[in-house]
Amino acid sequence: MTELPGKAELSGIADNIKPYIHRTPVLTSTSLNNLTGCDLYFKCENFQKTGSFKIRGAMNAVLSLGKDELKRGIATHSSGNFAQAAAYAALMAGTKAIIVMPEGVVEAKRDAVLSYGAEIIYSGNKPEDRENKCREVIEKTGAVFIHPSNDLNVIKGHSSCAIELISDTEDLDVLLCQVGGGGLISGISLGFRNFSPKTKIVAGEPLGADDAYQSLKAGKIIPQRNPDTIADGLRTSLGDVTFPIIKELVSEVVRVSEDEIISAMKLLWQRLKIVVEPSGAVSFAALMQKAEDYKNKKAGIIISGGNADLSRLPF
Amino acid sequence: MTELPGKAELSGIADNIKPYIHRTPVLTSTSLNNLTGCDLYFKCENFQKTGSFKIRGAMNAVLSLGKDELKRGIATHSSGNFAQAAAYAALMAGTKAIIVMPEGVVEAKRDAVLSYGAEIIYSGNKPEDRENKCREVIEKTGAVFIHPSNDLNVIKGHSSCAIELISDTEDLDVLLCQVGGGGLISGISLGFRNFSPKTKIVAGEPLGADDAYQSLKAGKIIPQRNPDTIADGLRTSLGDVTFPIIKELVSEVVRVSEDEIISAMKLLWQRLKIVVEPSGAVSFAALMQKAEDYKNKKAGIIISGGNADLSRLPF
Repeated sequence: MTELPGKAELSGIADNIKPYIHRTPVLTSTSLNNLTGCDLYFKCENFQKTGSFKIRGAMNAVLSLGKDELKRGIATHSSGNFAQAAAYAALMAGTKAIIVMPEGVVEAKRDAVLSYGAEIIYSGNKPEDRENKCREVIEKTGAVFIHPSNDLNVIKGHSSCAIELISDTEDLDVLLCQVGGGGLISGISLGFRNFSPKTKIVAGEPLGADDAYQSLKAGKIIPQRNPDTIADGLRTSLGDVTFPIIKELVSEVVRVSEDEIISAMKLLWQRLKIVVEPSGAVSFAALMQKAEDYKNKKAGIIISGGNADLSRLPF
Repeated sequence: MTELPGKAELSGIADNIKPYIHRTPVLTSTSLNNLTGCDLYFKCENFQKTGSFKIRGAMNAVLSLGKDELKRGIATHSSGNFAQAAAYAALMAGTKAIIVMPEGVVEAKRDAVLSYGAEIIYSGNKPEDRENKCREVIEKTGAVFIHPSNDLNVIKGHSSCAIELISDTEDLDVLLCQVGGGGLISGISLGFRNFSPKTKIVAGEPLGADDAYQSLKAGKIIPQRNPDTIADGLRTSLGDVTFPIIKELVSEVVRVSEDEIISAMKLLWQRLKIVVEPSGAVSFAALMQKAEDYKNKKAGIIISGGNADLSRLPF
């Protein structure tokens, strides 16, 4: 693994992207503290620009482009939150974005991408369809590819979320973060390693898409086959950039069932009065499962996004 | 009408209740500003202790009791947010609360009241059943009655919500607030009259429970008969304390349809990522209907509560 970025670099990045993002609030809840016996701090990226943390990484990736690259524009593939984030980041940086999305994408997500002025190219529904179509687009247009998670600039951008949380809390004993492609937890881990190295980093992962758990166990990347989980943002696999960071910095992967995800999501809606998407609740589901381990401890919990489909709620 | 309370009294009350309540955030949204053409400031009482603004008034009412009254305990009737607020306020003040609730009350609300250590007495489902039962309880126990809305101490407590909003914003042109029994908008109006007298106060009211509209039109209290609205917190009628305040300080009552309420509620969930109960969205529904009138104006919007029943969502 190449050397990991240090304090000065990550602070600089957090400052660079600050004008384009929200400083999201850290919420607490007496009733959830009583329920779990822990001292909980929820970092609410559901309130972030474009509805998820993804804008942090997308913004840093776009701001890291050279003049010539900016002229060429960016391209990415995503059916979810990174699509909106990349479109918004490109708009902010005055460049063009081409987003490859599967044909069946939810209308609201498509409209959001279009509202930021990005171009959408449709592909088939399988991950490889998207990747192939994206490759085609890049060959044809010369656009710069930005991967939604397996990209060091994206990861570095996400570390700003950790920096904010650390500065708004005191000496967290543990930090719980969801893992899908691993971009978020890699960035969060880098942030904590630099600014709060004593905090233990724990991943939450759906049992139906447990490639991070399997990969850490095997000591090599085991790609996710046939993911089956309501947490649609966490169906992707670790990559060659995220895996080594996670392997070095994450202490444990806690796997949670679909029932645990839905019940954690519902508790957040009921008690915190916030809209959290299923993927966004996986970190809290992991805390709920392990609450005994963190009795009276200070636990940070990343609420990664709020783009829930209100017409298809699981409760 | 007796003389209205002034700055010093309301500031003092806001200070007194401060240790027991949350200072709720004021949220803004670029996308809702773009959608409406207005400059919107959402005062989020859905994040308040017990899930609604009601704790402000309940707390002030309880803190206003004399030693002997505190010994006797309090009694009230409510199937909704005031029940939880009164129970919590009594717990905080070290006194006893008896809450008269209809037999069919939602389990979650009943459990919340019990969790604050209050006693529940069940009554029939009609408003007069509750009132009669409450009278019985008071005769038997000597408890001090606190009305959920038509009580000057309750109203004065609610004015703290306006004081916070005014201090967190600059020169609001208009303030939109829902009206049911009128306790909230009376308190809000008193707060604005004292601390931001140029702000116009506009009420939002469900068309299916438009007694405030009818009462202001008639110049006298027209009690609500057979209310028919999803906004369950707004089915009650104005009283002899709230009516004269509203008559003097509220400029206009905007009536909104059920579709307008549901669509406003959904927009708040989608764009602000917050859980708002139907009654809590009526103020925003009124703004949506009148958006043309407030083009480029600064509008404060009271989100009164977040105790939505997640198993019975209207969308």
